[in-house]
Amino acid sequence: MFNKILIIGCGLIGSSILRASLNKKISKKIYVHEISKKNILKIKKISSKPKILKNLNDNISEVDLIIICTPMSQYKNIIPKLNKYLTKDSIITDVGSTKSNVDMLINKKLNKSLHWIMSHPIAGSEVSGPEFGNKNLFKNKWCIIIKNKNRIKFNKVVKFWKKIGSNIAVMDKNEHDKIFAITSHLPHLIAYNLIKTAQDFQKKYKKNLVKFSAGGLRDFSRTAASNEIMWKDIFFSNKKNMIQSINSFIKNLNIFKKNINRFDEKKLKKILINSKKVRKQIIHLKQDVSKPDFGRENFK
Amino acid sequence: MFNKILIIGCGLIGSSILRASLNKKISKKIYVHEISKKNILKIKKISSKPKILKNLNDNISEVDLIIICTPMSQYKNIIPKLNKYLTKDSIITDVGSTKSNVDMLINKKLNKSLHWIMSHPIAGSEVSGPEFGNKNLFKNKWCIIIKNKNRIKFNKVVKFWKKIGSNIAVMDKNEHDKIFAITSHLPHLIAYNLIKTAQDFQKKYKKNLVKFSAGGLRDFSRTAASNEIMWKDIFFSNKKNMIQSINSFIKNLNIFKKNINRFDEKKLKKILINSKKVRKQIIHLKQDVSKPDFGRENFK
Repeated sequence: MFNKILIIGCGLIGSSILRASLNKKISKKIYVHEISKKNILKIKKISSKPKILKNLNDNISEVDLIIICTPMSQYKNIIPKLNKYLTKDSIITDVGSTKSNVDMLINKKLNKSLHWIMSHPIAGSEVSGPEFGNKNLFKNKWCIIIKNKNRIKFNKVVKFWKKIGSNIAVMDKNEHDKIFAITSHLPHLIAYNLIKTAQDFQKKYKKNLVKFSAGGLRDFSRTAASNEIMWKDIFFSNKKNMIQSINSFIKNLNIFKKNINRFDEKKLKKILINSKKVRKQIIHLKQDVSKPDFGRENFK
Repeated sequence: MFNKILIIGCGLIGSSILRASLNKKISKKIYVHEISKKNILKIKKISSKPKILKNLNDNISEVDLIIICTPMSQYKNIIPKLNKYLTKDSIITDVGSTKSNVDMLINKKLNKSLHWIMSHPIAGSEVSGPEFGNKNLFKNKWCIIIKNKNRIKFNKVVKFWKKIGSNIAVMDKNEHDKIFAITSHLPHLIAYNLIKTAQDFQKKYKKNLVKFSAGGLRDFSRTAASNEIMWKDIFFSNKKNMIQSINSFIKNLNIFKKNINRFDEKKLKKILINSKKVRKQIIHLKQDVSKPDFGRENFK
């Protein structure tokens, strides 16, 4: 498919792309740019095939596809090097979780002759690091690709993600940021906020809550263990949508509070029943399995 | 251990107690009181051993242990029958998720000669119904037992839960309700509220969010698919603690909003990093497994 691809930043997502690319023979040569020495050692254990680049210089000038998998706050440091060493023949893509900010950065900083097709694979976990990568991470998962006028290069990016297993959805950057504010960014923020609230309680009452977290808190703690650099970047990058969705969330919490305060059985039950419908849709759309969850310990 | 036990209400929890009791030979005879015809058919499939009682009358007068597993809003209808047919020799327990309200009901409505030792097994799932029960549901899970002056009967309830696999923690009713407001009731309310917020968004913007729920929303939808009767009861029963914890949650959300608005990197990162500590404690205390979660589809 490609002669040379370059993965910049090889953590969970980067190393999953690496593994999938090796597995699907996406490219004759695979370059990996990673600055963490610890990560480089781990990447070498995955395969000896990729060439590790410690610096980005004219060694990248003939790369067909660059996939940027660093936290978004790093993009501004990478772009000057792309400007310096790439030609119009290369395609740049990224895996960042927000897109309006990346688009703004591209417009401001990227050479007009270069081509960046933004993508966002909807896959991941609470863990970070190349050792957790998986060649099937993207299999049957959505990858959002942002509309772009360059049909040829756009189609190549689509082909790349399809080849490593993704289902493709095409969106406008603003639509993307609005949707994922609700389906991903707000849930993460809420999980962090719940853990913070539990910590405050624990401090105030000196009770060991965590011991009894299996009834609900535990599941949120998983989401709230996600990478702090990545998520700080996301919350800042999607600021306007985050503020809006936090406000809607608080509005609904106040309605909840009112219903509890008034013992309004009918209204409360209606909200709870409606939630089940979403669950049914999620299972119907194969975004989760229907198998009930009793905690992840296995019953014997 | 017992001659006769009676399980009142045989859904997920009741049928798990039934299965565990059969498995551990807890009692010579097991009675089950269930009013749903659909559930009775399902219970008969589990085992032919338990005797199904369609009504509670003098058939229960010699039961050693009664375990009430109905939604808490049913307790007030059951107590008059216990008053009428039980003697001081029986022990009553329940599995309700809040305790101050049950204590109040006992003080008001239960005959002074009868003994009710309150318990709360920390186990369950988003699904309801006897078909989802499991004999190992309580294995290595906490069961909270509320302090009681009758040592002999208290010890018998402890023994019962231990025998079916629970770890025992003893608490005061108010302490219990405070702790589980944070570790269980607030997380459920928050999950319901998040789904409601997503539904509002979907209605307003006519976007199919659910399709893209794998990035976070999906996991909350599972919690928010829990039984609406049970959870309405819990929110009302623990009203004071719920209102307090919703208020703390909103306070923290406003801090979050402020940090995002001001791009306060340092403060935001601190909150996110602190969350990880809770996750570590939860895994250390064996309340969850450390295995990362990539969604519950299996990688092949």
